Amino acid sequence: MAKTVTFGELMLKLSPEGYGRFFQSDRMQASFGGSEANVATGLVRLGTECSYVTKLPPHALGQAAADSLRAFGVDTSFILRGGGRIGIYFIEKGTSLRSPLCIYDRKDSSFALSDPDEYDWDRILDGANWLHFSGITPALGKNAVRICAAALEKAKGIGAKISFDLNHRAKLWSAEEAGKTLVRLLPYVDLFIANENQAREIFEDGTGGFVPGKAPDMDRCAADAERYARRFGFAAVALTARTSLSASDNDFGALLYDGNDAYLSRTYSVHVTDRVGSGDAFDAGLIHSLQCGKASGECVEFAAAAAALEHTVEGDYFRLDGSEISALAGGDSSGAVKR
Amino acid sequence: MAKTVTFGELMLKLSPEGYGRFFQSDRMQASFGGSEANVATGLVRLGTECSYVTKLPPHALGQAAADSLRAFGVDTSFILRGGGRIGIYFIEKGTSLRSPLCIYDRKDSSFALSDPDEYDWDRILDGANWLHFSGITPALGKNAVRICAAALEKAKGIGAKISFDLNHRAKLWSAEEAGKTLVRLLPYVDLFIANENQAREIFEDGTGGFVPGKAPDMDRCAADAERYARRFGFAAVALTARTSLSASDNDFGALLYDGNDAYLSRTYSVHVTDRVGSGDAFDAGLIHSLQCGKASGECVEFAAAAAALEHTVEGDYFRLDGSEISALAGGDSSGAVKR
Amino acid sequence: MAKTVTFGELMLKLSPEGYGRFFQSDRMQASFGGSEANVATGLVRLGTECSYVTKLPPHALGQAAADSLRAFGVDTSFILRGGGRIGIYFIEKGTSLRSPLCIYDRKDSSFALSDPDEYDWDRILDGANWLHFSGITPALGKNAVRICAAALEKAKGIGAKISFDLNHRAKLWSAEEAGKTLVRLLPYVDLFIANENQAREIFEDGTGGFVPGKAPDMDRCAADAERYARRFGFAAVALTARTSLSASDNDFGALLYDGNDAYLSRTYSVHVTDRVGSGDAFDAGLIHSLQCGKASGECVEFAAAAAALEHTVEGDYFRLDGSEISALAGGDSSGAVKR
Amino acid sequence: MAKTVTFGELMLKLSPEGYGRFFQSDRMQASFGGSEANVATGLVRLGTECSYVTKLPPHALGQAAADSLRAFGVDTSFILRGGGRIGIYFIEKGTSLRSPLCIYDRKDSSFALSDPDEYDWDRILDGANWLHFSGITPALGKNAVRICAAALEKAKGIGAKISFDLNHRAKLWSAEEAGKTLVRLLPYVDLFIANENQAREIFEDGTGGFVPGKAPDMDRCAADAERYARRFGFAAVALTARTSLSASDNDFGALLYDGNDAYLSRTYSVHVTDRVGSGDAFDAGLIHSLQCGKASGECVEFAAAAAALEHTVEGDYFRLDGSEISALAGGDSSGAVKR
Amino acid sequence: MAKTVTFGELMLKLSPEGYGRFFQSDRMQASFGGSEANVATGLVRLGTECSYVTKLPPHALGQAAADSLRAFGVDTSFILRGGGRIGIYFIEKGTSLRSPLCIYDRKDSSFALSDPDEYDWDRILDGANWLHFSGITPALGKNAVRICAAALEKAKGIGAKISFDLNHRAKLWSAEEAGKTLVRLLPYVDLFIANENQAREIFEDGTGGFVPGKAPDMDRCAADAERYARRFGFAAVALTARTSLSASDNDFGALLYDGNDAYLSRTYSVHVTDRVGSGDAFDAGLIHSLQCGKASGECVEFAAAAAALEHTVEGDYFRLDGSEISALAGGDSSGAVKR
Amino acid sequence: MAKTVTFGELMLKLSPEGYGRFFQSDRMQASFGGSEANVATGLVRLGTECSYVTKLPPHALGQAAADSLRAFGVDTSFILRGGGRIGIYFIEKGTSLRSPLCIYDRKDSSFALSDPDEYDWDRILDGANWLHFSGITPALGKNAVRICAAALEKAKGIGAKISFDLNHRAKLWSAEEAGKTLVRLLPYVDLFIANENQAREIFEDGTGGFVPGKAPDMDRCAADAERYARRFGFAAVALTARTSLSASDNDFGALLYDGNDAYLSRTYSVHVTDRVGSGDAFDAGLIHSLQCGKASGECVEFAAAAAALEHTVEGDYFRLDGSEISALAGGDSSGAVKR
Repeated sequence: MAKTVTFGELMLKLSPEGYGRFFQSDRMQASFGGSEANVATGLVRLGTECSYVTKLPPHALGQAAADSLRAFGVDTSFILRGGGRIGIYFIEKGTSLRSPLCIYDRKDSSFALSDPDEYDWDRILDGANWLHFSGITPALGKNAVRICAAALEKAKGIGAKISFDLNHRAKLWSAEEAGKTLVRLLPYVDLFIANENQAREIFEDGTGGFVPGKAPDMDRCAADAERYARRFGFAAVALTARTSLSASDNDFGALLYDGNDAYLSRTYSVHVTDRVGSGDAFDAGLIHSLQCGKASGECVEFAAAAAALEHTVEGDYFRLDGSEISALAGGDSSGAVKR
Repeated sequence: MAKTVTFGELMLKLSPEGYGRFFQSDRMQASFGGSEANVATGLVRLGTECSYVTKLPPHALGQAAADSLRAFGVDTSFILRGGGRIGIYFIEKGTSLRSPLCIYDRKDSSFALSDPDEYDWDRILDGANWLHFSGITPALGKNAVRICAAALEKAKGIGAKISFDLNHRAKLWSAEEAGKTLVRLLPYVDLFIANENQAREIFEDGTGGFVPGKAPDMDRCAADAERYARRFGFAAVALTARTSLSASDNDFGALLYDGNDAYLSRTYSVHVTDRVGSGDAFDAGLIHSLQCGKASGECVEFAAAAAALEHTVEGDYFRLDGSEISALAGGDSSGAVKR
Repeated sequence: MAKTVTFGELMLKLSPEGYGRFFQSDRMQASFGGSEANVATGLVRLGTECSYVTKLPPHALGQAAADSLRAFGVDTSFILRGGGRIGIYFIEKGTSLRSPLCIYDRKDSSFALSDPDEYDWDRILDGANWLHFSGITPALGKNAVRICAAALEKAKGIGAKISFDLNHRAKLWSAEEAGKTLVRLLPYVDLFIANENQAREIFEDGTGGFVPGKAPDMDRCAADAERYARRFGFAAVALTARTSLSASDNDFGALLYDGNDAYLSRTYSVHVTDRVGSGDAFDAGLIHSLQCGKASGECVEFAAAAAALEHTVEGDYFRLDGSEISALAGGDSSGAVKR
Repeated sequence: MAKTVTFGELMLKLSPEGYGRFFQSDRMQASFGGSEANVATGLVRLGTECSYVTKLPPHALGQAAADSLRAFGVDTSFILRGGGRIGIYFIEKGTSLRSPLCIYDRKDSSFALSDPDEYDWDRILDGANWLHFSGITPALGKNAVRICAAALEKAKGIGAKISFDLNHRAKLWSAEEAGKTLVRLLPYVDLFIANENQAREIFEDGTGGFVPGKAPDMDRCAADAERYARRFGFAAVALTARTSLSASDNDFGALLYDGNDAYLSRTYSVHVTDRVGSGDAFDAGLIHSLQCGKASGECVEFAAAAAALEHTVEGDYFRLDGSEISALAGGDSSGAVKR
Repeated sequence: MAKTVTFGELMLKLSPEGYGRFFQSDRMQASFGGSEANVATGLVRLGTECSYVTKLPPHALGQAAADSLRAFGVDTSFILRGGGRIGIYFIEKGTSLRSPLCIYDRKDSSFALSDPDEYDWDRILDGANWLHFSGITPALGKNAVRICAAALEKAKGIGAKISFDLNHRAKLWSAEEAGKTLVRLLPYVDLFIANENQAREIFEDGTGGFVPGKAPDMDRCAADAERYARRFGFAAVALTARTSLSASDNDFGALLYDGNDAYLSRTYSVHVTDRVGSGDAFDAGLIHSLQCGKASGECVEFAAAAAALEHTVEGDYFRLDGSEISALAGGDSSGAVKR
Repeated sequence: MAKTVTFGELMLKLSPEGYGRFFQSDRMQASFGGSEANVATGLVRLGTECSYVTKLPPHALGQAAADSLRAFGVDTSFILRGGGRIGIYFIEKGTSLRSPLCIYDRKDSSFALSDPDEYDWDRILDGANWLHFSGITPALGKNAVRICAAALEKAKGIGAKISFDLNHRAKLWSAEEAGKTLVRLLPYVDLFIANENQAREIFEDGTGGFVPGKAPDMDRCAADAERYARRFGFAAVALTARTSLSASDNDFGALLYDGNDAYLSRTYSVHVTDRVGSGDAFDAGLIHSLQCGKASGECVEFAAAAAALEHTVEGDYFRLDGSEISALAGGDSSGAVKR
């Protein structure tokens, strides 16, 4: 059976309750999240076995972080324990005209400072047919870049597919720095996933087929994807497009170029509960359905529906059932109650 | 003064806080609800005395359930105590593209297993001029059907009006089963109330005058109502129409055929806080205003406004004032603050 | 550096959690608010020093009220302590078709009963260049009117600018009573601020250039403002316009007439979290930017953006950063997350 | 069947959550309470019908107050609606060495300002065999004293028993004022109930048979009770004794003198959750068991057990079952779980 | 490495927040618990691998129940999914003189109705060296007894040790019924664990060496244990003794007879946060330390310390670290903070 | 008027609600605390003006931290803003046999990394007559030691009194390291405050006059204090003694040696709500009463009462009134309610 491995940094996420501003009340929602861990929760929820690799501090918070993934059924047996701290991000949800506010306190986390040699990729990847990571990881510093490199090389060697979500984080590094580093990692990548705006910025190339308020221009989107594929040797490219009408209202759609043809998903208009984690839900939906051998058009439709639906879910982890996603992908967005 | 009697099952309702998914947090909102009990809360809030009849377990939860109605001023003196359990329903509210999720755990409740002979309808209906029930009750099993039959017969005998809300619950029985059973009860009914879709499904008859996104087709709606009235001998028929644009956005309107003419209410566009209980609010608004002797057009307008407004209220019970409903029915939907 | 003084009543505000109705749950949100205190929080948040003057009871609640302002950096050293009670207002937030519900319990508060001679305006206004108050204060009774008069006279004497927000509260006094009293205070006012509807009602004059659902009629708005300025000798007039589409959806815009020309802000469509305090945010934004010497057009744009954004904030106090407001005033209403 | 009538002021009670200090968090627990209303909840919970009489404002909070009693089954049909406000008391629970903090904001409540003529005691007392009130009511002002006098006279006239709990509130009036007023009301009283310290203070008479840390001196307690009975013509006297070891640990016991003999209850050592309402639970337990015709010794044992147990209950209302009280009165204080 | 298997019923546990009574607030704490599942959480937390076997409904609540164990690292791969409902127990925590209140709603749960043939004990027990269950399971009905029998037989066959906690539940069956059924299962048991009172009741034999308020009488305790061992062929017997001074204060101690000698633990005086789950913590502590090959005296000391400490933990699951237990077992009960 | 300056690190404190373990629920209590900041809140609450000096990050959390002190009336105008992060400490409260759990995540905080030259002690100490700091600050690293040295030198120069609380934190440095560093700072100190155990450990000298469960041995305590004073040239020495009977029950007392005589306070037995901050309350009580010129015996009695009472308060900050402390210091520990 298919087994996927993801790795990256798992963080403690602290948010004011509801739509409160920081410290308006004396209580915070506390959960865990990290792009690749979120993808891992999605994969296991959808039925694809997944191991998640990171390093967490040996104390009770590190344990709680690992437990949060274990609750989903993610295999946490390769998580290293040690170092001094878990990265933290404080996030104040936005609403309407007010933007979300994100404060990173993730420097010098156990993962970011971990030694690449601590990870035994032979054991970790044993039996894996897929490896997934995102652009956040190499942004965490030199050690992290070396961890990526080691994992990719090993995965390539055993013939596992490699997917990568660009996930550019401007608070971690500049587009230029990102570009320079990624150029060394991208040749390993089979499936490249990116927000179309970020791809254009990092690659300094793109014609922007997704235009807010209009139907996507299929031809231009497809051309971009194809060009990216050719430039880096990707077997497939998925581009996502988000129009942020306000912090509460987003449109979301996506395109998948499978090396031969390009397929557009529906565009979903969604009232946002918490948009963090929606891109990761896309990744999970796409990787899962590709591994299931579905047709490209179905894959992108399923992945986009997963992403759209995840906007209604508080927290970063994937809290959706496959049947909910399939229903939405199939066109039922009525939100009716069944009783 | 007018006194109405309603009967049915009162359940414990357990929901995650806010728009969380089940067990995302370790806390649940706990309240009580049941279609006919909800109607009872509405009637007393609007000024019509009402007794509610059910059977509840003798323990503290059964007591709390009865107390919750007593707080509203519903007469609970005919509630039987005994049996083993209170029915439970777990409900996860939906939002935007995500549908609500309803899990019933109501089998073998004290009410569903209660013996029809336990209910002393002579005493219960003494002084009553109106009896109301819904299609949920006969769906609970043979005992429940016999309870309905006994109550209807007695009510008919003393000349009380009988209203019935179809409230089809597909998780309890099929449309076919419902049709077969209801055919024995409907001849007692004076005022028949139903969602127009459900009526069409159960009666296998209807032309669908309510079309999402368009103004209702008055003639077709009225013709449906009239036909139903003729077929079962209803003195009046009220049809409600809901368009679920998403879990968060619904349109709601209604029609009342009073035996002579048909009257359409406005159609309300409402942002949903909790849609459960809105149909019951319609029933309460309609029964109350009919008993007050208002004109048919006013009655349906008031009832539809009550239903629309109840969408903004968390919980199943009717938490509205008559003046709020009248203001909305009168056209003020600005939601402005008075200070 | 600029120092502003505001004075008025500070109240305890009690609200059900979320969008619950009164006593649906056994918990209430407790905070403090009052128009002029809200303005004070806004001014200090934006960088203008501000002293707030009121009288609060000597007990722990009075202390907590003062502390709540002190947390923002408002100078509370002139707050008198004594008397028997803090005014209270109970407010149930509205949503969609349901209006907010406001119950005042503010009679005989320490401030309303305070003796005008208790306030040492010489000391309070020492070094102040601006005095701000609102129409709520004179509505609190004869003592309060005399407090206003003493403050205005002193402020005039030392050459401080005087701003006034009409803030008519129909639950406190009628438009007619308001008109009669205000006519004695308005001649002191340099900057007059009002909701355009309320101005028209109190002044019995106005052509209503703001029409719901249309672009504001610049010429008519400007003419109204100019006429008010001439009639009372205001140096400047700001009119705000709110269209309440529902309790959850409001449009908000404003106009500033600076004695020479009139300037219209954008009109913002905002999904409302809590609209109380948005008018006060407008005042703070306007007074602050005027004191910074910005151009009139910029001032009204900044103030309107502050007001619009404050709709997304729970509670009366000003919980916004200048940079957030500037971004919105500059046209970015996408609500995107920066990370 | 026995029916008791109680009357007095029902207040809104606002407390910080848990053992927090005022405004340490932004949330408050909101409930209702008042000595006689608390007694009413106890009586109906134990099986004695009870009507509660007061006046509440016509707004939503007044309704919620009445509903809170209705939930218990208290007859609220004689509650008047009108006037301007509900009395409020803010209470911060104490713990260990820290005392509770009580702030009254109850002046000019609808009840305190109500006209004695508004109460139709003929109708209210129709069918009643018992009237209960407490010393808090006459402390509320001249109107309230006259309300008491009218009720007592009527009750006496129809032969109902009259019980009175001294409940001295030093924040409302001095011991001297209390003594002067009560002397006019006490001759109507059949059953006099008081904390033994307060009785001694108000009556300026008493030898203090209850000594902290020792077994009560039966002879001296009984002598005090007998003397009080003779002085005012009470048929019976109950004295309660509380030793406050800390805010968290109290000892509680009581004595009943029934005109012939005196009976001491056990002394209970209780860890306090919320001590407010425990004296009222004593009253309810005593009045109920006297009406049931139990022996004097049993009555005081049951009443003391009710009071002791109520210390473990948050809130003022009586949330105990008769069986729990009987078990404790019978000597089982193990707190073991039955499953 | 050691692997233990436990099986039984996992229930949804619903409790009022804090020490509130049922429905005093509208919120409930929701968690999961069941004696054998609790033991499983303890074993994995302490480092012994454990599989838990049960049957849960296929819906979201059943999934959440399984996830709650997965979070701890319990192997849930043998949990069956199907049937209609998860058993529920409502529990109101007691405090001081007030007893906890437990309402079972567990009839006809997926587990209780499951077919013994659904469990593939060959696969489940493959590699297991220990099987643990409790007296709650056979109390659930005939199917459950047959499930026990099948599991025991298989375990015996492969040479796994079998431990059993008597856990008598009087609400499920009488002592007599229990005795009759257990006599067929006990011969399989190697390690018998019981509260000494319950053992005496079920076995109708025992001299009661544990006397509240005194040091345990070693000789009598040991004699009881030895007699039980001889009667049923147990290799070892552990007896626990609890003195419930009040719902808030318990003393807890234990004895282990290892076939040769008997060992007494310290007696712990503990202030109770939530006593449910403390007996299960004893089981986990004992089974784990026995498997680690520790000396009998150390084993019972560790197990008793685990049980004592678990009284301070909200919820049924084992939320303790081995190092905390060891520190307490070693005599440090100061509760000092390390910083 | 007296003005005190304190400096040190202000941290974000995150705790599970109630007595929950980390991540048992998804909510955390969020507040701020730090020994010297806590002392500052105490001083201003008691009436001594106080400036607090630290460095906080420029983002919203840094602002909230400063605001939390501003709410108390602490002068925050000398707080520097910059650097990258606020130190965090996660704390799980203990109860009964379970110890609190403290996880520091405070490395590389804005304060710890701040440059000693950033602090303008001339301006900060202008007008100050007292400087207070604790042993936590020099434990934060070389920069922090240099900040201490600069502040002490300047304070000495202007004749301000200097107080120091030893506050040894074993997680930050060893007793040996502490001793070596402190030896350079102690000669500046006038008033030395320490837990008697810690003093003995760091100074490797002490006879331990405080013995758990016995009355303190006055002569030995006084001799220790006198010897410390002579060794380092302290004008006065205060020693505190805590006996941790369990996490929930502590005894607390203190001794003050004023250079001539030694004075013992009462010993308080306190049921602990949250013990963090109680030592700081002692400091505030002592510094305040010394500045008020009270007699030494009164000073230590007041300070010990403040410390004892602070154990009942959630959070680190000082939330007590002087009158509460005086009442307790005067012997009233009954915790009775005044109403």
